Amino acid sequence: MKMNSAPIIILVRPQLVENIGAATRAMMNCNLPEMRLVSPRDPWPLNSPQKERLKAAASGADAILDSAKVFESTAEAVGDLHAVYASTARLRDMVKETLTPRAAMGEIAAHAAQGGKTGILFGPERTGLINEDLICAGKIIHIPANPEFASFNLAQSVLVMAYEWLTANGEAPVEILDYGKSRPATREEVFNLLDRFERELDETGFFTTIEMKPAMMQNMRNALMRAHFSEQEVRTWHGILTSLTGPHGRRKANG
Amino acid sequence: MKMNSAPIIILVRPQLVENIGAATRAMMNCNLPEMRLVSPRDPWPLNSPQKERLKAAASGADAILDSAKVFESTAEAVGDLHAVYASTARLRDMVKETLTPRAAMGEIAAHAAQGGKTGILFGPERTGLINEDLICAGKIIHIPANPEFASFNLAQSVLVMAYEWLTANGEAPVEILDYGKSRPATREEVFNLLDRFERELDETGFFTTIEMKPAMMQNMRNALMRAHFSEQEVRTWHGILTSLTGPHGRRKANG
Repeated sequence: MKMNSAPIIILVRPQLVENIGAATRAMMNCNLPEMRLVSPRDPWPLNSPQKERLKAAASGADAILDSAKVFESTAEAVGDLHAVYASTARLRDMVKETLTPRAAMGEIAAHAAQGGKTGILFGPERTGLINEDLICAGKIIHIPANPEFASFNLAQSVLVMAYEWLTANGEAPVEILDYGKSRPATREEVFNLLDRFERELDETGFFTTIEMKPAMMQNMRNALMRAHFSEQEVRTWHGILTSLTGPHGRRKANG
Repeated sequence: MKMNSAPIIILVRPQLVENIGAATRAMMNCNLPEMRLVSPRDPWPLNSPQKERLKAAASGADAILDSAKVFESTAEAVGDLHAVYASTARLRDMVKETLTPRAAMGEIAAHAAQGGKTGILFGPERTGLINEDLICAGKIIHIPANPEFASFNLAQSVLVMAYEWLTANGEAPVEILDYGKSRPATREEVFNLLDRFERELDETGFFTTIEMKPAMMQNMRNALMRAHFSEQEVRTWHGILTSLTGPHGRRKANG
């Protein structure tokens, strides 16, 4: 269902086969099955060494590579689509509606629900999309990155879009523990407690065989880490240990 | 504000400096300023050739690289943190709460609002995190990827987390156009209309100088693409053109 309605990823004049491969890997992870290429720098079908580099970067996403269609122009590549988006950082002299990736995926899902076919254009590595490409798109998608360092590469941009498609169905909210008047313990505070536990258990002969110890300690540590102790609880546990191993407790353990 | 409360990205025993570099690039794009390294395969400080490969992949995110701290163990690397998450695909023999990246960033933001310091562990490229690392984390973050092809690489996983941090503040919803009884036109249908417009304008002598034509056509095409025509509207415009250029219209244009 979702597969058929996914936006088509359209790489316009991509330069590096490594980026094409990495893009397909991101797509395969995120249930985007269809890629189109517009005039890739290395003409398709690729020669053997290029194909090897491509396959290495794709890391097994061969189904997408094998079915990718190549077009001469961006206009041809989007010919059968009902809505086209362009992923780009800046618009020079055009006015177009600009969306975040998340908002765009909401729209794309809505188009898909009406049976519409959509595509997203990505420009070449160095130069990005030119006006002739941008004209083929109805809207712009802009990743709202750090304005002082907006430098996603091609494969990273595809991954962000693909990931937003993956998560377009929304997710359940979660809550964190309420620590009341205390605060979460630092990991160091928890490790100190766990180390003390281990020392004390060593001393009290808890580990009957040396072979069993690593697995037992791992399970114990893991269970206590899962508890998300507060700083107060760590102190309480130190008190408990002191109490258990003090004159009375120790007597009992040894008795 | 947000910078100081961002989760610390902790790469555990990373093997390839290219991945460390690509991770810092993703971080810099997404306002994540702090990286920690646990026993990287190539010991730090790096030698010259390694450093060059690192810097090329980081693509200018030097501030993060220069301030990255190196630790001998995962436990040391998370010592001062209040909550730790582990990014991993599968848990072998441990029980831990598992969150999506989006849900985790909600929690991390909540921790940050309480002044808590958080970190996210990422394992080595081939093997992933081992139990000794996972014990240092309170919860697991799992990217809900295609179960038949879950193969994000290290840099891609860091990008997904960083991107979720970037967008953790939520966004405004958007709406798409209501096409009523029609449907969105395909791009091909729109291009055909635009091509016809151009031919007709050529014939009617609209372009007074040949130099002006490309810019004028671009502006006109762009404006009409922005309109998101329905299939019905495309037909209407063809009718309008036919009418304008027919015997009566043409007479007027030439008259």
